[in-house]
Amino acid sequence: MKTIHELQTSIETRIKKHFSDITNSPLGLYEPIEYMMQIGGKRLRPALVMMAFNIYNSTPEKAIDQAIALEVFHNFTLVHDDIMDKSDIRRNIPTVHKKWDENRAILSGDAMLIRAYQLLATPENKNLSESLRAFSDIAMKVCEGQQYDMEFETRSDVSIDEYLTMIELKTSVLIAGCLKIGAILGQAPASDTDKLYEFGKNIGIAFQLQDDLLDVYGDMEKFGKKIGNDIITNKKTFLLLKAIEIATGKNAKELCQLINQQDKPEEKIKKVITIYNSLNIKEITEAKISEYFDDAANSLATIEVESAKKIRLQEFANMLIMRDK
Amino acid sequence: MKTIHELQTSIETRIKKHFSDITNSPLGLYEPIEYMMQIGGKRLRPALVMMAFNIYNSTPEKAIDQAIALEVFHNFTLVHDDIMDKSDIRRNIPTVHKKWDENRAILSGDAMLIRAYQLLATPENKNLSESLRAFSDIAMKVCEGQQYDMEFETRSDVSIDEYLTMIELKTSVLIAGCLKIGAILGQAPASDTDKLYEFGKNIGIAFQLQDDLLDVYGDMEKFGKKIGNDIITNKKTFLLLKAIEIATGKNAKELCQLINQQDKPEEKIKKVITIYNSLNIKEITEAKISEYFDDAANSLATIEVESAKKIRLQEFANMLIMRDK
Repeated sequence: MKTIHELQTSIETRIKKHFSDITNSPLGLYEPIEYMMQIGGKRLRPALVMMAFNIYNSTPEKAIDQAIALEVFHNFTLVHDDIMDKSDIRRNIPTVHKKWDENRAILSGDAMLIRAYQLLATPENKNLSESLRAFSDIAMKVCEGQQYDMEFETRSDVSIDEYLTMIELKTSVLIAGCLKIGAILGQAPASDTDKLYEFGKNIGIAFQLQDDLLDVYGDMEKFGKKIGNDIITNKKTFLLLKAIEIATGKNAKELCQLINQQDKPEEKIKKVITIYNSLNIKEITEAKISEYFDDAANSLATIEVESAKKIRLQEFANMLIMRDK
Repeated sequence: MKTIHELQTSIETRIKKHFSDITNSPLGLYEPIEYMMQIGGKRLRPALVMMAFNIYNSTPEKAIDQAIALEVFHNFTLVHDDIMDKSDIRRNIPTVHKKWDENRAILSGDAMLIRAYQLLATPENKNLSESLRAFSDIAMKVCEGQQYDMEFETRSDVSIDEYLTMIELKTSVLIAGCLKIGAILGQAPASDTDKLYEFGKNIGIAFQLQDDLLDVYGDMEKFGKKIGNDIITNKKTFLLLKAIEIATGKNAKELCQLINQQDKPEEKIKKVITIYNSLNIKEITEAKISEYFDDAANSLATIEVESAKKIRLQEFANMLIMRDK
């Protein structure tokens, strides 16, 4: 079984081959695609496609173009989401619509989605019909997730269940889908494909909840991110929604005031964290993460292949949720 | 052989079935798609898919979902192009980004592109791999055409050849592609598929050139469009580019001044038309249209099926280029 690192290296090389020295015209369309595909990232999604494929086929390279299709799709969502979310910076460099303009970002994004389908449908794909159906279903769900995410920004009555549905659609369906498509391409039995999907879905949700947690309780030096950004922007994270749900009396009143407070960000962060602490939000979130993590582990355990073949996915889950046990 | 009108009726009914009473959530994503798919149009592209299919298969309804895939794709391009071109009105009602907002138009457009792939890949498609490859290639070319079109707006040195390439990519490749995909689905011989593609490509270019011509020389009452809009906006049409190419002396100087003239639109239209007349632009454009129309007819003639099977396509070409002979 190839290690994650080995897969990431193959993927990076293949992406360079597909997306550099673009000579296609018009350059105005292809240049932003090359830019976006070259700014890196951990290439986890294509690695997942290949890991799932590798359980059923000893040559993961056979699925590399389909794996990259999922990375291109992911990057397409980033290009369009960045326009919608008005994000100017990604991975420390300007986003496509900022470096060029919105029209270029819309059109290059469209071309990336088409390119993803082209890579999915290379002749190496021996299970085109099923993998294509899975891919489109996943892609549609990701759009649904983004729509919910945008709607939630202006709603004040988002429930925890709605939030969990949103992050499932926006984030974890794609992680789950990478595993599902890898398994389909590897001609896995349908029951395994479903279990791998469940594994990915639960790991994806756990990962997103952990991301919410780290914004507040993360080690700034370790994660290189400023603490409390979600608090300043009133982002509807699991932590905030849970706090709103269970806060009563003085806590509830103060939390409401803090959400409406526009100034003194440092004070706001401090006070919100004090409320979170008094409500045990950290422990509640950690318990929820463990729940999803355990569900994921259970799905993986019931897949009837030798343990050695599942070890890379277990390592991946541990790495993502930062559990070394 | 079904008539164009019969096919259009089946298509309209099927579109209503697929795109009304949308109960999918989030409504915010699906509502603009329903809106766009229901505002009509002549459904020429899906009719072309079914006409080409019908040459090789007596039951055109077998290709109806794939035909609608092409209509959904076409409507996706309209939604995104309208954002890029800042067009607020289409078919006399507000465009998606105007009725809702740009984010909704970007995301619903994305979902339409995915939906197009879903419709292309229904189980009825017995030639998935080849039709999918053709579809993606066409889709990518349409994006290239839109990019060229946007670039040409700010360039003053666009050549006639560049213009013809742009309209080929932006408009006629899709018309050609509908025929090609219909033929592929109908299991036509590859040589027929290519000839149908050539037929569609030439008819598409002829149609666009005629559109340029009608803006200046059209019968306002007959076409319901105001004359001279392209002249006012300095749109780089075949007529203008040809006039720039062949104008000399006083004509060239005056044309240059008129292009830079911002006020008195009625006077500008009148003066530009006077120059066009003195340069025989109408006759030159008509000759060019005839050239493409004849090339199209030749491609159609060389397809070795009985004439009766090609009659609908000939009717379509005559209708589009308004030739009743």
